[in-house]
Amino acid sequence: MNHSNRTFKSWRLKERPLGEIKTTDLELVDDVIPEIKANEVLVRTIYFSLDPTNRIWMSDVDQYMEPVEIGDIMRAGGSLAVVEESNVEGVNIGEVVQGGMHGGWQEYFTIPESDIIKIPKDTGLPLTAFISVLGFTGPTAYFGLLDIGKPQPGETVVVSAAAGAVGSIVCQIAKIKGCNVVAIAGSDEKCDWLKNELGADHVINYKKENALEALKKTCTNGIDIYFDNVGGETLDAALTLMNKFGRIPVCGLISMYNDWSSVGPKMYRNILMKTLTVKGFLVSDYADRFGESLENLGSWVAEGKIKFKVDVVEGIENAPEAVNKLFSGENNGKLVIQTSKEP
Amino acid sequence: MNHSNRTFKSWRLKERPLGEIKTTDLELVDDVIPEIKANEVLVRTIYFSLDPTNRIWMSDVDQYMEPVEIGDIMRAGGSLAVVEESNVEGVNIGEVVQGGMHGGWQEYFTIPESDIIKIPKDTGLPLTAFISVLGFTGPTAYFGLLDIGKPQPGETVVVSAAAGAVGSIVCQIAKIKGCNVVAIAGSDEKCDWLKNELGADHVINYKKENALEALKKTCTNGIDIYFDNVGGETLDAALTLMNKFGRIPVCGLISMYNDWSSVGPKMYRNILMKTLTVKGFLVSDYADRFGESLENLGSWVAEGKIKFKVDVVEGIENAPEAVNKLFSGENNGKLVIQTSKEP
Repeated sequence: MNHSNRTFKSWRLKERPLGEIKTTDLELVDDVIPEIKANEVLVRTIYFSLDPTNRIWMSDVDQYMEPVEIGDIMRAGGSLAVVEESNVEGVNIGEVVQGGMHGGWQEYFTIPESDIIKIPKDTGLPLTAFISVLGFTGPTAYFGLLDIGKPQPGETVVVSAAAGAVGSIVCQIAKIKGCNVVAIAGSDEKCDWLKNELGADHVINYKKENALEALKKTCTNGIDIYFDNVGGETLDAALTLMNKFGRIPVCGLISMYNDWSSVGPKMYRNILMKTLTVKGFLVSDYADRFGESLENLGSWVAEGKIKFKVDVVEGIENAPEAVNKLFSGENNGKLVIQTSKEP
Repeated sequence: MNHSNRTFKSWRLKERPLGEIKTTDLELVDDVIPEIKANEVLVRTIYFSLDPTNRIWMSDVDQYMEPVEIGDIMRAGGSLAVVEESNVEGVNIGEVVQGGMHGGWQEYFTIPESDIIKIPKDTGLPLTAFISVLGFTGPTAYFGLLDIGKPQPGETVVVSAAAGAVGSIVCQIAKIKGCNVVAIAGSDEKCDWLKNELGADHVINYKKENALEALKKTCTNGIDIYFDNVGGETLDAALTLMNKFGRIPVCGLISMYNDWSSVGPKMYRNILMKTLTVKGFLVSDYADRFGESLENLGSWVAEGKIKFKVDVVEGIENAPEAVNKLFSGENNGKLVIQTSKEP
């Protein structure tokens, strides 16, 4: 098919942000929809994920993958897309697939046959499940908590950004494993949801309470696992109260992403004093065990043991503004941009 | 035997030090040598160990065991003592035993039968081997490097305080395991010893060179394992250059011990960015595997693959001044106080 008259929009990185992301740091451009080659499909984005790590990719600090280059399409941590044209046998128009690392902040793209992962049909789940709990954020919670945290029944698990896409799943898996769960979030509404809907044993609104003081009151037996999404003062508070042989899966350090000059935790010494294990991880490190995580997460969702929320913002034009909701805490569940209708 | 007319000296903690340990923070007192009960032995200290952790025990910061109480005998991280009286069958006068946690900065003490560990005779090794490489510092190096560091042939291992009692053994085990060893120490003399005698591939005198710049030049393939004895700027330099999936055994943070207000590493974020494992440990965590470590270390010493140095300071009265050598770097090998002659 000749697309020379059809264009798609994408956000390209224009300048590296200083502090918070500004819409002017990116540029919304039109390009001609590409022709597909042999063994490729053309897909139209339905949803793409917005994640705190977008901010990392915009900086040229040394990081776990290459930063996005100036002028390149902004990378997305996952997307769902529908096949519009196919040169791949067995992949039909109208089928929904994962964008993987091919889909960024853009309306159209192509995927080679080797990278096509179809979304299962007739699961009874909303499609957005596959860009949240059954996308990347669920497995992130799963491997970080279970593989690094190694929770034991009765242990105390503290979760920061607990109402977020990853944190909310961590809280619920920790409950499934019989732990005492202390959830830290940034609003009373989120805290209520965590306590009343997700079953957290204790909740802390860090915007109202000092995290250290609140944790001291709540974690009367200390902290065995601190699942860190934020770094900063909350990390310091948790480090202060960790028990011997405690574990800290480092999933995110969002409080640092807008200011790389920030110092490290004052209580770093407790890594020695309490013989802690602090381990950074990426969900991609567990690629060969994705199946295991999706199977378990899928069962827990089906059994009603895991609930999830997706915060859908419509319109590609709103991506740069929407991503900042992750930093202010205004998002309400897994944040995604919807760029076209579900089929 | 009635000891009412015989006394022994011990150092008791008088005040918690501010900054560097001052002799006036402790008090040298005389006490009557205790009577032994049934199933006890009375021992005379030959050597007691001086370790950076003495400084931790003098502070009332939250730590891996209780701090030494004001008025109590200063705790030692190991000692060797000779039996002078015995109420234990099979333990004879003149035999040398480990002081374990019974012997502190003191000339005499008692050990119950259950805690007696005899030092093997006729090994051909100097007795001081059993308060250094075959005491606690060798196993500390062994478990920290092998169990946490998990060195693979060809990997780059950076060791701080590399000429110290633990660091020097780490360097040599890393060489046995086929690693590229970069040793950081505080004098040219130490660096020469590390390179010419112990086989370190590269040496850095951190008092002459900026650690980060020197490591950048030396570790052209990045750092896979950073064995940390010091914390502070050296830790930050290492964090900056760690490879993905790098490991940091945290054995000590000596640069922080005189000033607990110091901040954590600026490059803490690399725990996430490079998916590092940072793990604090104590040799006592590996008590059930001591035999394994002593067997291997003993073989390596016998084969000449591991060399060790012991810095013997004579006279219990010199302990408070001598311990500061660990902080200035003036010690020359495993630092011990000798309080009486070897039998």
